Amino acid sequence: MQYSPVENQIIRNQYGRLLSRIVVDAELTGVVAAAVEELLRGARSMLDVEPAIMTEIPKGSYLHIRLIEDAGYRRNEGQRWKLERDAFTLRQVQTLEEDRLQLIGGSAAGVLYGVFELLRFISLGISPEGLVIEECPSNRLRMMNQWDNADATIERGYAGNSIFYESGRIVKDVSRVRDYARLLSSVGINGISINNVNVHDIETSFITDEFLPDVARLADLFRAYGITLFLSINFAAPITIGGLDTADPLDDTVRAWWGNAVSRIYEYIPDFGGFLVKADSEHRPGPYAYGRDHADGANMLAEALETYGGIVIWRCFVYDCMQDWRDRTTDRARAAYEHFKPLDGRFCDNVILQIKNGPMDFQVREPVSPLFGAMKDTNQIIEYQITQEYTGQQRHLCYLIPQWKRVLDFDTQATGAGSDVKRVVSGSLFGMKYSGIAAVSNIGDDENWTGHPLAQANLYGYGRLTWNSDLTSEEIAEEWTRMTFGNDITVVSTVLQMLIQSWPIYENYTSPLGVGWMVTPHYHYGPDVDGYEYSRWGTYHFADRNGVGVDRTKATGTGYAAQYFPPHAEMYESLERCPDELLLFFHHVPYVHRLQSGKTVIQHIYDTHFLGVEQAEQLQQNWAALSGLVDTARYEQVAGRLAEQVEHAQYWRDVINTYFYRKSGIPDVNGRTIY
Amino acid sequence: MQYSPVENQIIRNQYGRLLSRIVVDAELTGVVAAAVEELLRGARSMLDVEPAIMTEIPKGSYLHIRLIEDAGYRRNEGQRWKLERDAFTLRQVQTLEEDRLQLIGGSAAGVLYGVFELLRFISLGISPEGLVIEECPSNRLRMMNQWDNADATIERGYAGNSIFYESGRIVKDVSRVRDYARLLSSVGINGISINNVNVHDIETSFITDEFLPDVARLADLFRAYGITLFLSINFAAPITIGGLDTADPLDDTVRAWWGNAVSRIYEYIPDFGGFLVKADSEHRPGPYAYGRDHADGANMLAEALETYGGIVIWRCFVYDCMQDWRDRTTDRARAAYEHFKPLDGRFCDNVILQIKNGPMDFQVREPVSPLFGAMKDTNQIIEYQITQEYTGQQRHLCYLIPQWKRVLDFDTQATGAGSDVKRVVSGSLFGMKYSGIAAVSNIGDDENWTGHPLAQANLYGYGRLTWNSDLTSEEIAEEWTRMTFGNDITVVSTVLQMLIQSWPIYENYTSPLGVGWMVTPHYHYGPDVDGYEYSRWGTYHFADRNGVGVDRTKATGTGYAAQYFPPHAEMYESLERCPDELLLFFHHVPYVHRLQSGKTVIQHIYDTHFLGVEQAEQLQQNWAALSGLVDTARYEQVAGRLAEQVEHAQYWRDVINTYFYRKSGIPDVNGRTIY
Repeated sequence: MQYSPVENQIIRNQYGRLLSRIVVDAELTGVVAAAVEELLRGARSMLDVEPAIMTEIPKGSYLHIRLIEDAGYRRNEGQRWKLERDAFTLRQVQTLEEDRLQLIGGSAAGVLYGVFELLRFISLGISPEGLVIEECPSNRLRMMNQWDNADATIERGYAGNSIFYESGRIVKDVSRVRDYARLLSSVGINGISINNVNVHDIETSFITDEFLPDVARLADLFRAYGITLFLSINFAAPITIGGLDTADPLDDTVRAWWGNAVSRIYEYIPDFGGFLVKADSEHRPGPYAYGRDHADGANMLAEALETYGGIVIWRCFVYDCMQDWRDRTTDRARAAYEHFKPLDGRFCDNVILQIKNGPMDFQVREPVSPLFGAMKDTNQIIEYQITQEYTGQQRHLCYLIPQWKRVLDFDTQATGAGSDVKRVVSGSLFGMKYSGIAAVSNIGDDENWTGHPLAQANLYGYGRLTWNSDLTSEEIAEEWTRMTFGNDITVVSTVLQMLIQSWPIYENYTSPLGVGWMVTPHYHYGPDVDGYEYSRWGTYHFADRNGVGVDRTKATGTGYAAQYFPPHAEMYESLERCPDELLLFFHHVPYVHRLQSGKTVIQHIYDTHFLGVEQAEQLQQNWAALSGLVDTARYEQVAGRLAEQVEHAQYWRDVINTYFYRKSGIPDVNGRTIY
Repeated sequence: MQYSPVENQIIRNQYGRLLSRIVVDAELTGVVAAAVEELLRGARSMLDVEPAIMTEIPKGSYLHIRLIEDAGYRRNEGQRWKLERDAFTLRQVQTLEEDRLQLIGGSAAGVLYGVFELLRFISLGISPEGLVIEECPSNRLRMMNQWDNADATIERGYAGNSIFYESGRIVKDVSRVRDYARLLSSVGINGISINNVNVHDIETSFITDEFLPDVARLADLFRAYGITLFLSINFAAPITIGGLDTADPLDDTVRAWWGNAVSRIYEYIPDFGGFLVKADSEHRPGPYAYGRDHADGANMLAEALETYGGIVIWRCFVYDCMQDWRDRTTDRARAAYEHFKPLDGRFCDNVILQIKNGPMDFQVREPVSPLFGAMKDTNQIIEYQITQEYTGQQRHLCYLIPQWKRVLDFDTQATGAGSDVKRVVSGSLFGMKYSGIAAVSNIGDDENWTGHPLAQANLYGYGRLTWNSDLTSEEIAEEWTRMTFGNDITVVSTVLQMLIQSWPIYENYTSPLGVGWMVTPHYHYGPDVDGYEYSRWGTYHFADRNGVGVDRTKATGTGYAAQYFPPHAEMYESLERCPDELLLFFHHVPYVHRLQSGKTVIQHIYDTHFLGVEQAEQLQQNWAALSGLVDTARYEQVAGRLAEQVEHAQYWRDVINTYFYRKSGIPDVNGRTIY
């Protein structure tokens, strides 16, 4: 979105010619107006061209923007999508008389996405010669979840305060929010929930006349960029603000209360998206208090929203957060499946379950949630976490697209080979009405949005991956790097390499072999191997002087492995076939157990922790080599973060190696320093 | 202070007669007026008598109150004290003509203390027959330190919010503060610092015209009860609020600034006590920033206060709170001695060092600070912590007087046998000008003052022990119990026993053999064996699969043991002679090391943790037996806390036993459940 001037003269001239005249075959209002405005901004800045907007087809070179409702293009999976209205085509048409770049959007939003694609091509230096692009998003719902609170704090935010709120109210000056809307729409995001899923006192009233005019202002703003607004709600709102003595979803007064609340919302916001709900999770209120289940709770809200076309997004992050570590029969990993699988088919058409990518909670490495593929008759959406809660909190470099892709590419085998998670969440596998991807945002009011400048790649990448789940991590990283730092080959190759390596590096010096949770409680930053070991959170590693890991097999453990479809259930069950990277998630093994890699577990721990620090030091050196090639401000910011990363990685290495050395008594075969 | 009606008719009649007429040979103003008022309150309530105040000696029975300045009585250590003005005598004079109870105070405060002693006797049912009491406090300074903040929070407070502050200002309604002043003077406290030693933004301005009128209001209030007011100050105040660019204690402008600040304080409060200072400790500003030492810093303030008779109380809680756990050469236990011992003799006469009882930080068990006895030419005051930061946070019962007495009775051997800590802090050993005892308060705005009703015994006991360091823990506990719950023998013996056992019980299920610090970081509640193990706080146990403990010997460890005078230095140095209760503080030993008790270390850990829970359960049962003998409100409050204590003790037991079992692999010889 910097729209830096294009340095390549050929590209500059080609696009300069095409964009000097723009024919718009659509009303210049709303999203189309925003699209054209964005195009003008880009053309001026990148090409130094002031386009003429015209309605008549001219002779010579021009850009032709057309809006053709329902012009969407068929995806190769043979299904036709309502939301193909988000699709667009972009192609060059050259004849003797004309040199035309033609952008056809299936909807106003399609036009907008096409414009951003065009601007991306200009920025990346991709020639318009022979361009034939047909784009349709992989996922219908492409959601952003803000965990922002009305007091301007952000739960698990690492980039300053909220851009949405100040002192308990929605901000008056929305310029920063507008930039954020542009940013999101540039990568195809089409929905946003603007408040934390943990809904506190003030936010509970967002659905009342006191706040709705302000919420509507934000809805107007996002609407102009094709983004639908959602609210997180408090399931107990009928009690908290409604004056009722119950929030029982089957109680008629409660249902009537929600019906009224919803109708009031739609008076202010006619295209309101719906509700995001965290219920009966980590002490949030929910239907359990009344002997009802999640389907009862979600359906009650869904019925209130149905008339208006609204939807309920119901989170599946439900587990016993008051677990007794002494009780080995309970397993938090099993919880989401056990709670929701039995409810398959009971949810209304306009209810979507939002399922975290893994069974625990956004750890650096987890298996894929076994719920994906297991609920054939329920709308589903996957939830990722862009904000780096457990992955370095934007102080460490951790490019997360490879992690997310591994989940999307995981073949659940639900209907045999090819039942990839991406086909579950795109809706194509089971033909769902609603589906898609959601993620927790990583932005705040820091000038650079994300604290760590390179953490922007995760935000960008999330949008791109959600739009097109077949893009590779490398493609996305390269796009982002070129658009952010320009096309200098040294810079591009260095940053690209840094990004791609960063997740494995972070994993190396933090949590070994999928065991997770070795972090400081509450903060979720910094090593504390026993931090969650004797806690009520269901998060254990069971390390003793002989071995480590959680036995989740059906044969001798908690039985979690059996929640997968057969090929995976058997693979995870097997000590020999379970992938090394998840070994300690599924098995408790002696420190001298030999991995598929040939190393013992204890030597693997030592080696990865020493290696991770060396790799972090290498990141620092690689970046140092870019001094002078990157603008000073960003260079220094990144250099500062990398220096901190190296120091903290050393600390992480020493604490974890020392912990396991003190426990196992087994020395490092290479005799390196362990304290 | 409940002044419950006396049930014993004989006692009631005896005192009723004596108190029906009171001759006051002193002006009825100030402290004497407060004393008489308190006496009337007590007489009415306990004896149902309305005393007649007279100036002429009557015939028959009466109480004669006299104020004779400098009438104080010599303590048996052969020194005469300026503060003998706090002394009093109370004796019965019976002749044929008269039956007189005579109270002579060496000062107005002496009269007040005498009145409280008399009220205590009435309450305890001690007959006036043949009464001959001569009381002179063991310690000149008997200080209370509030860790209250202007925002009404209390650092390490477990009984509600501050009674001193609301919304950044001193409270308007001081009724609760007045009750607190009565409470404190009833046990002989004569000084109070009213704000947290960690002085934040608002409190930094307490020494300015903005706050001094309010501070003076409190000083007036406390003065009426013989209590002098002190303030904690921010060493960087000349910069923060003075507009200077330095706080260098040797800088003339800084010295002039403090001189002005002090003179302004004395305009408002002519008998202002002085400053309490936490400097160069845990990131608080101090003289180090300017290349000066603690003596430079303290003396600068002392000179400003000297003209007015004010004093500086300078805390010795100074250590490296950014220590690297990987560095085994540093030892936090050594820090206070290393910082302050070399400065002995360099402090002004009106500077007092305030030294925590142990070298670490109010742990459940620590050795005595080796600074006591080591600084012969420096005024000293010991610091205790009444608020139960590391000792159960007023959720667990932990009567602390036995802990404090062990410190006072510790023979430092500084000048040979008999150099007890109590003689260091009373000032008698080295003939110090100022000395005494200070403690961090445990009260807040909870209705019962201390959260746990039985925690009041610590506040009461602190005052009594400070007044008379020769009282036993049992005597104090019995006094408090009788005055609180009445003289029912079942109640008294049960509560007395519960109090006396409570510290060892708490120690049993928490931290073994003096090792300390196995608590949740920051909160300091709940077990977390490794919580402080890899931290920057200098607080380690070095447990590995073979053994546990810190080698602080001179021969092979950090050398801390050598900071003691020879007999103790040798005792602690010796693995055989070091007391079991401090073994892991001074030595790193294998789990199979045999204690003097005959048990192995690991079996000791298991046994004490199992025992501690059984004892906690016994506390609960003992209390349950008092149902119906204690008023319902207090019965339920205590029962609730004890139930919580039992549950948390079980958790503590299981976490710590499991930790050491997993590490050592050595089973409990009794085969009890370890997870």
